[in-house]
Amino acid sequence: MVKIGIVGVGTVGLSVVKNLQKNRDLIRARAGKEIIVKSGVVRNLNKKRDVNIHLTTDYKEITRDPEIDIVVELMGGVDEAYEVVKDALKHNKAVVTANKALLAYHRFELQSIANTPFEYEASVAGGIPIIKALRDGLSANHIQEIKGIINGTCNYILTEMKKGRDYAEVLKEAQELGYAEADPTFDVGGFDAAHKLLILASIAYNIDAKPEDILIEGIENINLTDIEFAKEFGYEIKLLGIAKKIGNEIELRVHPTLIKNSQMIAKVDGVMNAVSVIGDVVGETMYYGPGAGGDATASAVISDIIEIARGNVNPMLGYKKPLESEKVRLKTSDEIETKYYLRIAVNDKLGVLEKIANTLAKNNISIESFLQKPKNGYVKLLFSTHKSLEKDVKKAISEIENFDFVIKPINFIRIEG
Amino acid sequence: MVKIGIVGVGTVGLSVVKNLQKNRDLIRARAGKEIIVKSGVVRNLNKKRDVNIHLTTDYKEITRDPEIDIVVELMGGVDEAYEVVKDALKHNKAVVTANKALLAYHRFELQSIANTPFEYEASVAGGIPIIKALRDGLSANHIQEIKGIINGTCNYILTEMKKGRDYAEVLKEAQELGYAEADPTFDVGGFDAAHKLLILASIAYNIDAKPEDILIEGIENINLTDIEFAKEFGYEIKLLGIAKKIGNEIELRVHPTLIKNSQMIAKVDGVMNAVSVIGDVVGETMYYGPGAGGDATASAVISDIIEIARGNVNPMLGYKKPLESEKVRLKTSDEIETKYYLRIAVNDKLGVLEKIANTLAKNNISIESFLQKPKNGYVKLLFSTHKSLEKDVKKAISEIENFDFVIKPINFIRIEG
Repeated sequence: MVKIGIVGVGTVGLSVVKNLQKNRDLIRARAGKEIIVKSGVVRNLNKKRDVNIHLTTDYKEITRDPEIDIVVELMGGVDEAYEVVKDALKHNKAVVTANKALLAYHRFELQSIANTPFEYEASVAGGIPIIKALRDGLSANHIQEIKGIINGTCNYILTEMKKGRDYAEVLKEAQELGYAEADPTFDVGGFDAAHKLLILASIAYNIDAKPEDILIEGIENINLTDIEFAKEFGYEIKLLGIAKKIGNEIELRVHPTLIKNSQMIAKVDGVMNAVSVIGDVVGETMYYGPGAGGDATASAVISDIIEIARGNVNPMLGYKKPLESEKVRLKTSDEIETKYYLRIAVNDKLGVLEKIANTLAKNNISIESFLQKPKNGYVKLLFSTHKSLEKDVKKAISEIENFDFVIKPINFIRIEG
Repeated sequence: MVKIGIVGVGTVGLSVVKNLQKNRDLIRARAGKEIIVKSGVVRNLNKKRDVNIHLTTDYKEITRDPEIDIVVELMGGVDEAYEVVKDALKHNKAVVTANKALLAYHRFELQSIANTPFEYEASVAGGIPIIKALRDGLSANHIQEIKGIINGTCNYILTEMKKGRDYAEVLKEAQELGYAEADPTFDVGGFDAAHKLLILASIAYNIDAKPEDILIEGIENINLTDIEFAKEFGYEIKLLGIAKKIGNEIELRVHPTLIKNSQMIAKVDGVMNAVSVIGDVVGETMYYGPGAGGDATASAVISDIIEIARGNVNPMLGYKKPLESEKVRLKTSDEIETKYYLRIAVNDKLGVLEKIANTLAKNNISIESFLQKPKNGYVKLLFSTHKSLEKDVKKAISEIENFDFVIKPINFIRIEG
């Protein structure tokens, strides 16, 4: 018998309890042991919950209960969750967490103090078993690249915008449907995706980085002009979490990205998530499924509990021993080299295009394709470039923005592949 | 240190040796141990092989070598491989195999005698870690349905036929490209996919069935008319391995299938593989990647070796204990209930359509859509039906074939979803 305590009995916690009960016989056969939820920690004991377990407000009743084998942390947030999980590890409990923010900041500290199993499948891409795929299924591979659609809110908004709908209108709808929070910044600003990317990158590259170390841009500036350009040139616009290794240098970045619509990951629409991984031995594999929701997340949490009940002890971030041969360095955003799309709004005057083209050329940026669209009273110039250095692109943009015929801040989107 | 012996040093075996060497530091860090290939078994010692290990023709030198920890079986075939693997298990070796035929026939016997880890990730869908996903990542779920594109040869041929190319022409090209064997029956006849489906079904449903117990149809009768019909009505034609549970009844079948082109798995083209799994807790997840090739297969084989080196002991087919609550029954093909597409070639006479429609109605088959296409000298009638019983459809077909105006055997394709 394995006894668990759940810290944070909200939507996901309730779904874990419900599905452990519903699929009890099956789970016992697969795990080899009965899994019992003994108790749960909540903030408010008076709130009505449809669950038949002992509830307390004191997490230490669980982390220090000698009968509890696994502490399941579903409270969210960073600091308090960190205290709870550390206390659980200190008292030799195995830990299962769905908390991406906690791991984005403290995964390496937690790894260093964990002497018990520590699983976190639900922290990235909800119900998709991407942690196990990357840590166990692809363990033979040097990971060359990860591209993830790991925020369903953004993917839903961008998918709807393809139908010609406005960003603000779709965001409002997403909020009404429960896909986006009242304050949507964490999702649409790319921060949620960044947390998940950092977790994946640790498994791929054993690299410790915090959200503030990497490039994070959201989808707030994407407009229908960009969507039309993408259609015209065979691209989709997706918010991607990207991790890449080139030599001993690592790129980690989250931003809206133009990707060719022939790529499998470009075909992922709506709230669904997907992660494409390129390994040096296997090539590209992709993992697709629901990235959020109580039940999908509970599926991942329960699979972790079963893994522990089976007696398996996986290396938390995928490394049983330090990887001494590889000292990797995180690239700064200036050092990124990729293709770019630029949207420039100008007054329609003689010589405008020449001046812009000159400025791009002077900054080592060569144009791949160009589209000019008239708009009420002004002109939109849409460029895509060949591979360029981000530093050069930013310098060119600031120079072009200084021309008096440029009437709005320039928007740019990075192009992948 | 973990020492392995490889039985069968062909394309995959050589790739295992090569990649273990190439990614040695990384694999040591991930596994926690050095992995050494000690020896290999080959049929012909005189054949030149680019490998620096001890070679022998006697498998017992490996299965009974006290220094060997893991026997990696890559010889293929059923009977001889079964002897080798049994001998390895008898001598307490862990086993890793890529052999789908062996497992299609003997997975339950092997499970019953294995007291050591037994892994077989490479046996289904090559480099895609679908075994681990189903056995470990989705372990919380009752599996409602599996749909797999698990034969790259068939998917390549069907993808090329969408361009208007003829079956025979594309098959010939596939043979030249090395995607299809000189005798392509095993692939295009659906037998390879059936072996893989049976392995997946055992994990999903703990069900023992042999290839001869299930419905297996190949793609040999698909022609350009079918492809055109599919396009016209928004379908793709894919050879699918399908496993379904309805109540306590299991459907296992391999056949060409019409699926709506909006489904994610319908978008998988060329030699790529993909497996869609619907679980009662998580919903649909899908796994995509290369289903064949020396390196892709080696990636899976090495991940199994690492899993064992890490000290994990997974239940071979996903069940630590018998699943007593569920007695499942395999449906016969007559009992299948799905939608159907029928292609009927007739002489253009008065009353033909009426007679066919009557025969369908008499057999409880109602028509969903209908397309009539003229052809040199005759007429093609293309029907899709609402949900019908396979037994009824077969009876209707044999009755319709008896009409003198029907000039060719009727072809039918099952429709999913």
